[in-house]
Amino acid sequence: MGDAAKDAGFPTVGKVITCKAAVAWEAGEPLVVQQVQVQPPQKMEVRIKILYSSICHTDLSALKGENEAQRAYPRILGHEASGMVESVGEGVTDLQEGDHVVPVFNGECGDCAYCKHDQTNLCHKFRVNPFKSTMVNDGKTRFSTLDGKPIFHFLNTSTFSEYTVIDSACVVKVDPDAPLHKMALLSCCVSTGKAVAEGARARGASRIIGVDVNPDKFIKGKLMGITDFLNPKEVEVPIYDKIKELTQGGVDYSFECAGNLDVLRNAFLSTHDGWGLTVVLGIHPSPRLLPLHPMELFDGRKIVATTFGDFKPKTQLPHFAKQCMQGVVNLEEFITHELPFDHINEAFQLLVDGKSLRCLLHL
Amino acid sequence: MGDAAKDAGFPTVGKVITCKAAVAWEAGEPLVVQQVQVQPPQKMEVRIKILYSSICHTDLSALKGENEAQRAYPRILGHEASGMVESVGEGVTDLQEGDHVVPVFNGECGDCAYCKHDQTNLCHKFRVNPFKSTMVNDGKTRFSTLDGKPIFHFLNTSTFSEYTVIDSACVVKVDPDAPLHKMALLSCCVSTGKAVAEGARARGASRIIGVDVNPDKFIKGKLMGITDFLNPKEVEVPIYDKIKELTQGGVDYSFECAGNLDVLRNAFLSTHDGWGLTVVLGIHPSPRLLPLHPMELFDGRKIVATTFGDFKPKTQLPHFAKQCMQGVVNLEEFITHELPFDHINEAFQLLVDGKSLRCLLHL
Repeated sequence: MGDAAKDAGFPTVGKVITCKAAVAWEAGEPLVVQQVQVQPPQKMEVRIKILYSSICHTDLSALKGENEAQRAYPRILGHEASGMVESVGEGVTDLQEGDHVVPVFNGECGDCAYCKHDQTNLCHKFRVNPFKSTMVNDGKTRFSTLDGKPIFHFLNTSTFSEYTVIDSACVVKVDPDAPLHKMALLSCCVSTGKAVAEGARARGASRIIGVDVNPDKFIKGKLMGITDFLNPKEVEVPIYDKIKELTQGGVDYSFECAGNLDVLRNAFLSTHDGWGLTVVLGIHPSPRLLPLHPMELFDGRKIVATTFGDFKPKTQLPHFAKQCMQGVVNLEEFITHELPFDHINEAFQLLVDGKSLRCLLHL
Repeated sequence: MGDAAKDAGFPTVGKVITCKAAVAWEAGEPLVVQQVQVQPPQKMEVRIKILYSSICHTDLSALKGENEAQRAYPRILGHEASGMVESVGEGVTDLQEGDHVVPVFNGECGDCAYCKHDQTNLCHKFRVNPFKSTMVNDGKTRFSTLDGKPIFHFLNTSTFSEYTVIDSACVVKVDPDAPLHKMALLSCCVSTGKAVAEGARARGASRIIGVDVNPDKFIKGKLMGITDFLNPKEVEVPIYDKIKELTQGGVDYSFECAGNLDVLRNAFLSTHDGWGLTVVLGIHPSPRLLPLHPMELFDGRKIVATTFGDFKPKTQLPHFAKQCMQGVVNLEEFITHELPFDHINEAFQLLVDGKSLRCLLHL
């Protein structure tokens, strides 16, 4: 399919494309699947034909308009996807028509002090910025309604559209043989850390303890390599004490994925003193501060947060994609549902109801 | 002197030694310099003839009895010192009579899971424990008054005595040619991090910004390599903003030495996002929590604390001692005063008055 497309060329190159997109018009309202116009890519931009897009809690949160930064409407949400380059703008040399790609919300320009630093994956220009809703080039949008009303971008990506325009810094080329329906998960889900258990298993962890109050998650968790389950509702001592008891002093790494400060404190204390590392992945909406006393740091436990799993997307994600192809990391288990694009609101409901891990939309 | 002592042997080996020590009898009272009895070392213990001891704020805090853990009296304080091995107990194979040594409050047994782990210097048995006031072997003291009343130990060391008994895990052998008067500072002062500026200079930092409300410290600081001084009383914007302005975005490393939460927050925010690391060295007595929001960690700034400068004392300090001998790190500047042992209360007063960095006592 990749080669065929490349040979044929896209007849739309250089033209405005009219296609289907799911548009968020108001906070908390269902998305409207409608025709939109998509401009050709400008300097250092890429226009992508989206083939698959999945839905993440961040999309849900933006749809609800949970915080001020997210309230830019009308807007095309979506940031987990895969597709094919339809055309590239001036100056783009690392991508070409027909390339199989994954859009990423956390970009890599390759030129800034951050991109040149080996200890961060936060690009100066293209890091996560929920306030950003237009393109860097000209501060304008590449989407509009059929009557010309601009439609805002979201998280550098806006993948709930048959075509989208993205800065090339936020587009990662993957192997043409990589299965694109699974690759969508690399955009965020798996890379960002929702696959902690899978990642720990792939890295050779001998014991992986899952903690959740929802016992339904334990069945799926086992498939991903979780060896022990703890339900705080069923454990009488603090969870961190129980984990220390199970592991002769604590785990080497803990991951906080809930965005809950009590969970975070338990995660911190459940690591081994001396060398334990807690990684914060959850989004913490509460204004409360870190529930840690500075003197507790002297026990040698460390705490950090990561964005996009600490991957530099353009330079490191392709290798990770290869690992996924080779089965080092198993992506299949994350896709619990698949639906046609038109059913996007149904897919959102599955997420709201906690029924899906990932529902893959076919565009 | 080392060789002479070794040849002669110490005539005291195996016997109780009666010698001079400075004893803390009550919280907040001056030390009493008096005759005490020092037992021979037991299994895995070492008896040391102390030649130099300096005074640290931790001694002052213990003398004041600022917290419950410190209120074990009578007690022999002191933990920064250097001296010579007088005799060793059963099983000690890495030290012998006449060895030049530095006692350390943070020991290294070499056998526990912590000592075998490359990411921590906190020994299971001999880490800092302010509640500990007796020997590990038998839970008894090796010090007593002339009429047999036990005198408690302090921080694994108790160096305000002409002779002290210390677990061999807390005794570091240094080069016989190392100048012992300076080596005393390795026990705590320099290793623990009071020499941040000196350390940064030695590691090649191009710019070292000192922040203090006391302008007197700036003169001494310049000698240690500080290139820029900021007095928060004279800067109108928050200190972290000023530092970011001076450094195009922030410093790579910041060190909090004040034990003050506002300083800590400023130290954290003054590092560069993406890779900045804040190291907590100050002791924080306030019950208030870390003044950081979990989401702030997503900017890639990290915060850790270190004990004893992260050195594994027995395996890593000897190399550091060599560096000091070679002038890589300059210890001389830290010794601002020298006094005979009998004047110990005077030396404490110099510290209370902020007049001395380190006053070296000659025993």
